[in-house]
Amino acid sequence: MALARGYAATDASKPLEPFTFERRAPNADDVVISIKFSGICHSDIHQARNEWGNSSFPMVPGHEIAGVVTEVGSGVTKFKVGDRVGVGCFVDSCTACASRDLDIEQYLPGLVGTYNSFEADGTTPTYGGYSDSVVVKEGYVLSIPENLDFAASAPLLCAGITLYSPLRHWNAGPGKKVAVVGMGGLGHMGVKLAHAMGADVTVLSQSLSKKEDGLKLGADHYYATSDAETFKTLAGAFDLILCTVSAELDWNAYASLLKVDGTLVLLGIPEKPVPVHAFSLVPARRSISGSMIGSIKETQEMLDFCGEHGIVSEIEMIRMDQVNEAYERVIKSDVRYRFVIDMATL
Amino acid sequence: MALARGYAATDASKPLEPFTFERRAPNADDVVISIKFSGICHSDIHQARNEWGNSSFPMVPGHEIAGVVTEVGSGVTKFKVGDRVGVGCFVDSCTACASRDLDIEQYLPGLVGTYNSFEADGTTPTYGGYSDSVVVKEGYVLSIPENLDFAASAPLLCAGITLYSPLRHWNAGPGKKVAVVGMGGLGHMGVKLAHAMGADVTVLSQSLSKKEDGLKLGADHYYATSDAETFKTLAGAFDLILCTVSAELDWNAYASLLKVDGTLVLLGIPEKPVPVHAFSLVPARRSISGSMIGSIKETQEMLDFCGEHGIVSEIEMIRMDQVNEAYERVIKSDVRYRFVIDMATL
Repeated sequence: MALARGYAATDASKPLEPFTFERRAPNADDVVISIKFSGICHSDIHQARNEWGNSSFPMVPGHEIAGVVTEVGSGVTKFKVGDRVGVGCFVDSCTACASRDLDIEQYLPGLVGTYNSFEADGTTPTYGGYSDSVVVKEGYVLSIPENLDFAASAPLLCAGITLYSPLRHWNAGPGKKVAVVGMGGLGHMGVKLAHAMGADVTVLSQSLSKKEDGLKLGADHYYATSDAETFKTLAGAFDLILCTVSAELDWNAYASLLKVDGTLVLLGIPEKPVPVHAFSLVPARRSISGSMIGSIKETQEMLDFCGEHGIVSEIEMIRMDQVNEAYERVIKSDVRYRFVIDMATL
Repeated sequence: MALARGYAATDASKPLEPFTFERRAPNADDVVISIKFSGICHSDIHQARNEWGNSSFPMVPGHEIAGVVTEVGSGVTKFKVGDRVGVGCFVDSCTACASRDLDIEQYLPGLVGTYNSFEADGTTPTYGGYSDSVVVKEGYVLSIPENLDFAASAPLLCAGITLYSPLRHWNAGPGKKVAVVGMGGLGHMGVKLAHAMGADVTVLSQSLSKKEDGLKLGADHYYATSDAETFKTLAGAFDLILCTVSAELDWNAYASLLKVDGTLVLLGIPEKPVPVHAFSLVPARRSISGSMIGSIKETQEMLDFCGEHGIVSEIEMIRMDQVNEAYERVIKSDVRYRFVIDMATL
């Protein structure tokens, strides 16, 4: 056991505050990581405030972790002291199931979240990346390419893979028209990744306020969804629409922008059910689907892809003691495009 | 021009009655067909009663046509007098579009319905299969395998292809678990076809009243959806669910029966939108999709498949003058499983 320092929510209604806790002593297959940077994901806020109703306190949020290996267990083969590594949304999963080999562990029972979860023993709580160190099984540790800006790599571990996985699964690439709904922490990664994959990329944002950024990051087209003309102009235009917002959109209107056989993929989870009409789907064999992060194998593939293409997140670096203020700004979408905490300021 | 006899709805509120009308003289690429059998599809009723709001009268319904070639135009190469042929839901489509080669013409603009539509000239109304003859471009005429019961083949032209197409598109076959929701005119074809493709087939019907039939036709399992236990027992069980009913089901409940990456395919069109929760899709990369009949190429492939496997519809043959009574029985689901009109009784 080792003492760790971090920031925790001690209650759903309280701001995060300094917190000291124990990290387990490393087992043979564990990697000990000194955390350098930690991204802020909107889901950190949902969980710190118990908005999904499944929160345990005290909670140390953070699942976009970039750090350096400081110690490895005797059985660790993939990592050595000094390596630049990342940890994403989960730190363990069920390995008994036959489906394990399918690399879809993120969708299977037995997933252990990086925080607000329990280790496989069912009793040891997990604490996330808003802290100085973490101990993680090597199978859930990712390599961060040396050429990438270290701080700006942290958001790849959640925002990056959340967009990369559906882009790959639904075959984004040359000749494909991809729309990204929402130009925020997730959406801006979608623009960069889809562009790097060779797709024709359109941003569908409420307004044109971030149009210049969108085009600079790789979008070929940029439309305001507040303009009704947009839905007429783009009817039947897209092979794939990635919806990164959790607002209650009219999915039928967005589905009408799909070609025959096109797919609208939900990445956020709106609070309420959305009325979907069969007429939006049946006459053009369209689909509404959902996607959630990615497997460990796919996450490493994404990081390697980002290394090859020089892709990182657009970030605003903050001090640890600015986290509560940052939360308020995330809620107001007042960030271009992801907050990353410099853990040296802890 | 030739005079044809049939039964027509002259108004949305009136029963069908005898009707005499003109069929065009065959062009070089046309096939003249003496109609022997005509299936009754629920959509005939919707349209005869203008329930979709797009009906033109007088209307001769019928798009499950089995007949014999009596004359061919000078340019016809695929058919000769005496051939057993079928005509399905459409008799022309846009051939200008680049997408034509994709064999998805059923989803593209320019489709000409077999009835309640207009020929490509935009002015000549089309009349359907409740008649003694029809003149159709050879590209929209299908060959019915010689070994199949002729009358029972008629429903393959709509009910058959409506199930065959999604089963093929979503890769039903050995090792795949397929559920068919609804054990009616569409559903019973789904059972036969999915079984012949080698899938493990489950019927999800309101009650167990047709269980014996379902198992006889090829279902491996049969569950009542009125029993809440069914949804517990079958949680996460299926790769593919084909929903053949137009009732307003709880799609979220059905989606919960899908495995990771499973798809719920809507084949009917419920009148009202259905509230779908993102939680039904996102945590298991599930999809809700729609599908509508199939291309001409795929319809011929389906008929050949049925020929190889000896598959036809389970039918109840009626006289032409029983059509209005049959409509009432279709609405009450009082048919096992498809009405076919013996056109010799016209």
